[in-house]
Formats: sequence, structure tokens, C-alpha cells
Amino acid sequence: MIDIDGMSSKGKFITLEGGEGVGKSTQTQLLAERLSNLRQKVKITREPGGGVIGEQVREILKKNSAELDSICEILLLFAARRDHFVNLISPWLEEGYFVICDRFYDSSLIYQGLLKEVAIGDIMELKRMAIGNFEPDLTFVLDVNTNVSLQRVKTRRLLNDEYDQMSRQKYDIVRNGFQKIADIFSFRAVLINAEGSEKAVFSRIWKAFEKRINIAPVEEEKIV
Amino acid sequence: MIDIDGMSSKGKFITLEGGEGVGKSTQTQLLAERLSNLRQKVKITREPGGGVIGEQVREILKKNSAELDSICEILLLFAARRDHFVNLISPWLEEGYFVICDRFYDSSLIYQGLLKEVAIGDIMELKRMAIGNFEPDLTFVLDVNTNVSLQRVKTRRLLNDEYDQMSRQKYDIVRNGFQKIADIFSFRAVLINAEGSEKAVFSRIWKAFEKRINIAPVEEEKIV
Repeated sequence: MIDIDGMSSKGKFITLEGGEGVGKSTQTQLLAERLSNLRQKVKITREPGGGVIGEQVREILKKNSAELDSICEILLLFAARRDHFVNLISPWLEEGYFVICDRFYDSSLIYQGLLKEVAIGDIMELKRMAIGNFEPDLTFVLDVNTNVSLQRVKTRRLLNDEYDQMSRQKYDIVRNGFQKIADIFSFRAVLINAEGSEKAVFSRIWKAFEKRINIAPVEEEKIV
Repeated sequence: MIDIDGMSSKGKFITLEGGEGVGKSTQTQLLAERLSNLRQKVKITREPGGGVIGEQVREILKKNSAELDSICEILLLFAARRDHFVNLISPWLEEGYFVICDRFYDSSLIYQGLLKEVAIGDIMELKRMAIGNFEPDLTFVLDVNTNVSLQRVKTRRLLNDEYDQMSRQKYDIVRNGFQKIADIFSFRAVLINAEGSEKAVFSRIWKAFEKRINIAPVEEEKIV
């Protein structure tokens, strides 16, 4: 068995969290590009999904989303997360990558915990079983007014995803929940005002990034 | 969410446990036949598997058995068990069936706990999350000498199953583990000497069954 807590990590694990339509995937991309431009090794990933098992579990979740019992769902999500962690995230971090992940266990606390009333204590127990004391090095919690995120989701017509079809009330619960996540996990999480242009939001993200994460100087400087 | 512990159950849940080659599926069949002959409502099921999700998870477990991380495996097994429990076992019990199940969570304690070193405390936590305080009404732990079970497994050429390819040493660990299960859970579990003919073994099972379980008299007696 893998001794998670005994691991030393050379890379950095960055997560992006927040409700639908807050711009996670766009900002994930922009962050990866910036780090690549600075000649850093970068991997992008997402949850649910990840490794071989993770993708198979993602299929089960998608196929059965309507009638899926919430306890069954959280067990499947953590099985996928364990696989993702053991087979992709950990090895990448060992190799010194910046690993940028679109959603991680904070999303379980909000969607299964707050929205579906799975006990928060049980979710944290599953977190301990699956990934031990491991935590992201930095979490960006993207926050926008519910009107804005609803409008963005509509524009993109992301209507296949269960979470995109939630009512306004649920959007508010999710938004408030993620704000609390940023507060409770302030040792690793930063709340980012994600309204405005993609560029404006990214400049806020990058400012917070530089403040918290040291980028190792590149040995051979080839950037003009 | 389903309030498991608040459920009243009209049926009875009977599990058969033990290592490979001890005769679980044969005895499951014989027990179901006897109960049917006594005009009782009977359902047969098995783990891993069961409901729609359970069967999809079973496929993942089969496809990836070689490289599957043990924590990922136990999370998947309990996701399948939750589905099985909520969507099949519970409704059947509510309808007054005798539900006979080939393997249940005792097998997780042995195969993932003893053999793969998943912490027993974590398995019991998962059990609590998935099925609350629910326990079988009666568990038959079938016990045979390792030589006998190895010979039976060879004869049946059940060589596709990971657990059938285990070394003799592992068979001994499994056997001793199940003996302990019968001891620890004596409020519901009975150790059955499963050597000898199918008929001889079944007569031991039936004797233990009659001692512990009341069979409701059939209203209209049509058995000749």
C-alpha cells in the first residue's frame, strides 16, 4: 500500500473550485499557459475523472446521474479520486510538475455534502481514506454573482450536466458554500472575484499565485 | 436520503460466506429450494454485483483486477454494496422475502482487510456509511480444510477469478479469518463444517437455520 503521508512532493498541486459558469476551465487553461511560458512543467487534469478507473467511474456517474443514491455517488467519486491521485497526480508531483486540477474534494463537500446532505464528517473520513493528509498547495475559489454564472451557463448551453440545470436557489447555496470553503481552508484557498473579463480575472489569479508559490528559476534562460 | 436504521424489515437476510471452493453457491441454491418447497418467497443474489450500478462496478473490478489499488477497490465494493442494498435487498426485505446472498461485507473484511491490509476500522466505517447498523439475520460461514477447497477449485477450473489463483498460504489466511468472523459475529454467524457431500452439508445448514429462524406458517397448505 502507498504511504501517502510519507510522500515528499517536488511539484505543486493547484486546484480551481467554484460553481458552474464561474470560469474554472478557462482560468485553468490560462494558468497552464502562463506557467508553460515561464518554462515550467505543467499538467492539466479534472475531476471527476482522471485515471483509467476514474474515467470508467465517470461514465457510471454520467449514465446513472438521475437515480443515483447520494451515498453510492460519494463512494464512487472517492474511488475515482483515489485512482486519480495514486496513478496520475502523485507521480506527476513526484516528477516536479505543476498539476492544475479543475475541481477536487472541495466540490464533494459542496455538491454531495451541502446539496445532497451527505454528512460532512463522512466526506472528510472518505477524504482521509483516499488521500490521507494530502491537500492542494493552492486552491482558487472562483466567485461570481449568481446572475452572472447563470447567464454564462445559459450562453454556453451546458445543459447536459446535472449541475448546470440547478435552480437559482441551489446556485446561491453552492456560491455561499464555496465562499465558506475559502474561509475554512484559508491556509491553502484564496477567494477570487471572477467577474469581469477573462484577462482581468486571470490577473487576480496570477497575483495570488505569485504571492503564495515560488517558481523555480529556469536553468537555461531562453525567454526573450 | 434513506433512513436505514429506521427501517423495519419483514423478510430475513441470510448470507453465505467462506473462501473459494467451500460450496457457497451450491448451498445457496439448496437453501433457496428448501424454502421454496416450504412455500416461502425467496430471492437469491450475490456480491460483488446486484443492482444496475453494482453490476457496472463489478465490470470495473473484473476489468482492472490486476492493477487495482486496494483502497480504490474497497470504495468501489462499498459503492456497489450500497446500490445493492438500497435498490434490491431492502425492497425485497420490505416485501417479506427471504433474501439469500452469496458473500456480503464479511468478505470485504477478509479479502480487502486481512489479505490486502485495508484497515479494519476503515472497512467498518464504510460499512456504517453504506448500510448503517443493518446486519444479516443469519450468516453461514462454510469451512473446509484447505486441501479440500483447493481440490474443489481445481476441479471446477474456476481459474479466471483472481481469488481462485491464490497460494495455499493465502487460502489458510482466508480460512482462519472466516473462522474468526464466525466467532466475533456469533450473534448472527454460524460456522458450518462444509466437508462431505452436498446433502450432508446442507443438513447441517438446515439444522442451524431451523434453530435460529422462524418460518411463518403458510396460510393455505398445499404441500402433499
